[in-house]
Amino acid sequence: MWSDLEPVGRVAGGGYRRFAWTAQDHALREWFAQEAGRRGLDLVQDRVGNQWAWWWEGPGTVDDAARAGRRGVVVGSHLDSVPDGGAFDGPLGVVSSLAVVDRLRELGVRPAVPLAVTHFVDEEGARFGIACAGSRVLTGQLDRDRALGVTDADGITMGEALRSAGQDVGAYGPDPEALARVGAFVELHVEQGRALVDLDAPVAVASDIWPHGRWRFDFPGEANHAGTTRLVDRRDAMLGYADLVLGARHTATRRGCVATVGKVRVEPGGVNAIPSRVTGWLDARGAEEDQVVAMVEELTARGQEHGATVTRESWTPTTRFDPGLSERLRRVLEREDEVSVPVLGTGAGHDAGILATAGVPSAMLFVRNPTGVSHSPAEHAEREDCHAGVEALAACVADLVAGERP
Amino acid sequence: MWSDLEPVGRVAGGGYRRFAWTAQDHALREWFAQEAGRRGLDLVQDRVGNQWAWWWEGPGTVDDAARAGRRGVVVGSHLDSVPDGGAFDGPLGVVSSLAVVDRLRELGVRPAVPLAVTHFVDEEGARFGIACAGSRVLTGQLDRDRALGVTDADGITMGEALRSAGQDVGAYGPDPEALARVGAFVELHVEQGRALVDLDAPVAVASDIWPHGRWRFDFPGEANHAGTTRLVDRRDAMLGYADLVLGARHTATRRGCVATVGKVRVEPGGVNAIPSRVTGWLDARGAEEDQVVAMVEELTARGQEHGATVTRESWTPTTRFDPGLSERLRRVLEREDEVSVPVLGTGAGHDAGILATAGVPSAMLFVRNPTGVSHSPAEHAEREDCHAGVEALAACVADLVAGERP
Repeated sequence: MWSDLEPVGRVAGGGYRRFAWTAQDHALREWFAQEAGRRGLDLVQDRVGNQWAWWWEGPGTVDDAARAGRRGVVVGSHLDSVPDGGAFDGPLGVVSSLAVVDRLRELGVRPAVPLAVTHFVDEEGARFGIACAGSRVLTGQLDRDRALGVTDADGITMGEALRSAGQDVGAYGPDPEALARVGAFVELHVEQGRALVDLDAPVAVASDIWPHGRWRFDFPGEANHAGTTRLVDRRDAMLGYADLVLGARHTATRRGCVATVGKVRVEPGGVNAIPSRVTGWLDARGAEEDQVVAMVEELTARGQEHGATVTRESWTPTTRFDPGLSERLRRVLEREDEVSVPVLGTGAGHDAGILATAGVPSAMLFVRNPTGVSHSPAEHAEREDCHAGVEALAACVADLVAGERP
Repeated sequence: MWSDLEPVGRVAGGGYRRFAWTAQDHALREWFAQEAGRRGLDLVQDRVGNQWAWWWEGPGTVDDAARAGRRGVVVGSHLDSVPDGGAFDGPLGVVSSLAVVDRLRELGVRPAVPLAVTHFVDEEGARFGIACAGSRVLTGQLDRDRALGVTDADGITMGEALRSAGQDVGAYGPDPEALARVGAFVELHVEQGRALVDLDAPVAVASDIWPHGRWRFDFPGEANHAGTTRLVDRRDAMLGYADLVLGARHTATRRGCVATVGKVRVEPGGVNAIPSRVTGWLDARGAEEDQVVAMVEELTARGQEHGATVTRESWTPTTRFDPGLSERLRRVLEREDEVSVPVLGTGAGHDAGILATAGVPSAMLFVRNPTGVSHSPAEHAEREDCHAGVEALAACVADLVAGERP
């Protein structure tokens, strides 16, 4: 499976550019459909365009089973990437989930509830700027009209992109029928930090997703000539921005949070022009919600001293995965391997978090990343750890589909 | 003349976008040709595309006169703008120069040497990033092949732009014949600071152009996830950049120079990605060359502490205008108005500086700008001061063309 995926959207430098509703995305969708076909899985698409490959031998349809109280167990992740992202963030979960189907069949497991592998679209939000757009619209957490109206860097709306991709824009929107089929969702993901390296363990169960948000800081200035304007006569918007960048690191360190300013826009943006406006985006997260909130309040006050307007663009409080489901997975894994399995929080958002917020019992497994690096070509998982991930997910799924309702 | 120029390249917000070899530039060239035609001036274009409108009633041609030791007096400036620039930077010099022709004719002056109004192309370098490209190529200070190869933001080379604009790319290059016609060049320009406001004078003579240069600072980092990477594990290229911005202001203040960071580029540039590379451009100038050099050395060392690679993109030492010519203009103006005329240095580069470097006797006049603001729609000159500028330039030119060789 990896060798088929490897060339799709690969760019110079070894990174990937796999953005929603592009040619690369089409290739990934076709790859997923082909893998579903190879396994005799029943491929359906929800109203958002997420792909679901069902394994259910009856009695009745998947919907019949759900109505009879036998909601499905779903595993999967996404296939898209950030700009110049790595090969594992997303694809590892989809590939492992497909491998789990093979493993269960080898083991002779015959699921008592439907089992699906899913491919969520547009998780990274690299093209339209909204993370987890596929699961957010599915669950009604993102308004369909707002989603259809957002534009990419070329001014193309998501609605236009969907139409170009041959999707049914009229049907686009929340899909409660698709959600009603899901009794439990487990997303396997490459770890995006170094905790499992430090703990010397290949696999962990997730506890929660840290509270996280984005704030836009608009610093005002006055355009003027860089050579002829005395320093005392200047209103240089870049100075406030630079102070925010250094302040964010300082405050985050003090409060045990993380803060990043990774995107900036300057007007007019000429080498010899004093900036009249600088916009910086702050990404703020942390294990403790009150610390994150306090950090952003401090930085807002600091920005305002430079005249900045501060706008909250998004905010997601702590997302707790289903404690019963997570605990069940942990027990399965500890029984399997006779070692204790770490339970980790994560600073990254995931479709599993969106489903959890929507009330779908959801959990995650993390696979060790020896570099700890994420959203970069340096992201990695050793072959042996990938296999351990598949075995762990297979054990969990085997337990979940064994008859008892998850 | 102003009412014809006013709409060309005007954008929302009242600023101008008049970039080299665009539709706006064509409109400006046609406007200049029309004004030359109205006055019966002989319009010629040099190998670079700069326009020269000659007034010479003989004997012989302008070239004959030059060969006979009667080189021409040339007045003019540029018509292009920075992004969202003002209406006066450039056009005030061209309009005033054309008005000087009218004024001299009203006064019955019959030049004893040829007189030209010139329009230099691509002074601001807003499109291709090289300031004074028109006069630099003309004088051989910028290699023709390097100039033809530079690209704009859309990847279009200057060579392609020239071809699209109907220019003769084969002939493009230094033009010693055009330069040989010039005995003296006087550029009138709106002041780009507040010195004349403070001195309560409408017009000044320039002494020199401050030494100035541009340096590119490339800060290295490591792309990683903004949510999941511990602060201690980060290599965030934005931190070094922010330190440069604040350091530049600090050092410039201490050394009596000016320093500006007005342009920045971030990779990968995502809100949730730690920057793997930040490139900032430093513009550094000052009245004292040794202070500017020392400032840049300090900032280079500071950048290098953050691992930055520092590249000098341009450097122009102090450019002194022709002392004899400048002093002559000052004496003419003081005789005219019976008040002392300020002599000012400037932090901005000009075509007159390029010609001075090429050995053409060159000088400048500055007209008061009540806001002191430049490269912005707020740039201004009062009608009365514009008239004072025309009168001053007319007096200087009348003196220069009066028969005695400048």
